[in-house]
Amino acid sequence: MKRRVTLKQIAKELGVSVSTVSKALRNSKEIGQETTEKIQAFAKLYNYKPNSIAISLQNRKTKNIGVIIPEIVHHFFTTVITGIEKVANEAGYNVIVCLSDESFDKEVINMETLANSSIDGFIISLSKDTQKRRDFHHLREVINQGMPLVMFDRVSDEIYCDKVIVDDAQGAYKAVKYLLDIGCKKIALISTADYLSVGKLRTMGYKNALEDSGIEYDENLVLKIDDMDYCQEPIADLFQREKFDGVLAVNEIFAVTAMREAIKTGYKIPNDISFIGFTDGLLSKHFYPRLTTVNQHGFEMGNIAARMLIDKLEEIEEEEHYRTEVIKTTIVERESTRPY
Amino acid sequence: MKRRVTLKQIAKELGVSVSTVSKALRNSKEIGQETTEKIQAFAKLYNYKPNSIAISLQNRKTKNIGVIIPEIVHHFFTTVITGIEKVANEAGYNVIVCLSDESFDKEVINMETLANSSIDGFIISLSKDTQKRRDFHHLREVINQGMPLVMFDRVSDEIYCDKVIVDDAQGAYKAVKYLLDIGCKKIALISTADYLSVGKLRTMGYKNALEDSGIEYDENLVLKIDDMDYCQEPIADLFQREKFDGVLAVNEIFAVTAMREAIKTGYKIPNDISFIGFTDGLLSKHFYPRLTTVNQHGFEMGNIAARMLIDKLEEIEEEEHYRTEVIKTTIVERESTRPY
Repeated sequence: MKRRVTLKQIAKELGVSVSTVSKALRNSKEIGQETTEKIQAFAKLYNYKPNSIAISLQNRKTKNIGVIIPEIVHHFFTTVITGIEKVANEAGYNVIVCLSDESFDKEVINMETLANSSIDGFIISLSKDTQKRRDFHHLREVINQGMPLVMFDRVSDEIYCDKVIVDDAQGAYKAVKYLLDIGCKKIALISTADYLSVGKLRTMGYKNALEDSGIEYDENLVLKIDDMDYCQEPIADLFQREKFDGVLAVNEIFAVTAMREAIKTGYKIPNDISFIGFTDGLLSKHFYPRLTTVNQHGFEMGNIAARMLIDKLEEIEEEEHYRTEVIKTTIVERESTRPY
Repeated sequence: MKRRVTLKQIAKELGVSVSTVSKALRNSKEIGQETTEKIQAFAKLYNYKPNSIAISLQNRKTKNIGVIIPEIVHHFFTTVITGIEKVANEAGYNVIVCLSDESFDKEVINMETLANSSIDGFIISLSKDTQKRRDFHHLREVINQGMPLVMFDRVSDEIYCDKVIVDDAQGAYKAVKYLLDIGCKKIALISTADYLSVGKLRTMGYKNALEDSGIEYDENLVLKIDDMDYCQEPIADLFQREKFDGVLAVNEIFAVTAMREAIKTGYKIPNDISFIGFTDGLLSKHFYPRLTTVNQHGFEMGNIAARMLIDKLEEIEEEEHYRTEVIKTTIVERESTRPY
């Protein structure tokens, strides 16, 4: 395989030190003009690409931001990435993404890969597995090395850093109130396992909204689904087992799967039953009927996370001062709920 | 801001050369045991993270693969990434992703960022903008530097490297034949602008299938849409303007938008009209009725691209020998077409 010529090879070839080559390529005044020209001509001839290696030894600012997210198949995280990209690019930063695939081990490897690459700081949302294990040593290590880190959406109280979250409990609370206001009497909840902070918080919001409206919590109306890819059976089962006229689903896959089952069961949407989902991705926008959703403002979340990180990198914000920004959810009214 | 301690700082502090520190941290036999222990203890104390900088000067193998894709909001590319991740991870490689956001400039910046980071080789799918400009200097530069590159899906004949593509023309051909076989008489095509290779090839397949079946090509039944986000109006217009009983759409957004319009217009799917889309993402799987699609096998495409790159990196494949792997599309039968 053809190799890129390295600083070391140039140095050897021209009988100078690596440091001389490195300085000459960056037009340092320490190196005489003749030597500089010779080195630059040689580097050009052999297609040398000045890389972060030499530069980073002197200056750790690479203008790259590393982002670690659990997955990109579902919509929310891709929206956040788009939001991060926008603010970062405008500020002259590039964004490099790694996926943890919901695995703790891969998250640790991602972190190492990026920390060993040329990045200035991290933006991360925890994998399910990490949330389950509550092992955050890899985050602490990075922070201890002085590398700024911002967490979003799936965060941990045990880590001191800047964070961006949505008001998940409040979002679910608003959605249930909305369903009650348009006349729903019995509202089912389709949620995830409790170890996921979002599932837990949204279930809490659901419960509180019912309680505040004097409606008793009925656990028969609550589904907790662990694997998004196998949600159809439990949802179909819920429709056979119970009667209800409103559904809050904690993501859009659950929501449209429930709408399919409702249509099959003979319900008219939204006349007989209303649906609200979370996520607001392609499915919500393109399903028929279009899905009313709690908008988590992923794009805005990405904007804020990038802004927070860049403020730390450029020392606009003090290093030891951390804040948690809470984004307000809003309800996007579409066709799956009766008019308000 | 707290800084990570660098090789240089350790060297200065201990009065040894950077190269000594670097070697000691990698347990080189060139350095005496006492010095090695002292340096390692110091590095540990100050939380030094051995990074690619020192390592890469000696050995360019970083076991990282850089991937550049146009976007992650639509489904196809995320599936390919998942496929790349699988093969790469199994072979001990990490995957780093950058997005070009369909922009030539960003693609060039991505390429620089990754080439300057610690990666061994590239996997790339071209941005729309790059395909329009036909400017591939950034790809040639990387190849000239001896860095292996694999292109997938959106490729260019002007670049000599390994490639993975799907038989786009053949996929569209098969889909049209399928629609004719189940009894469709008039088939509309909803495609993209011709400068995109996939739109062009699929349109060619559509035309050829009609011709081979003795059906005249009718340009009134062909829509070319430039912006996926504004497809509803032209599609609604097509339904008002023409009568037809089959639709081939080159992506799932076009397909489900057309299905919505058909349902609104009063058509029963699949009795009155049948639909086949490309992509096979969440929308295809979750729409009601579920969409019959031409499966492009994105996951498999990612697998092959990663395999090709790793074979080059590990010198299993000869450097100057390039091949183009063509993945056969298959039709995934669902509810949007009458039974075959």
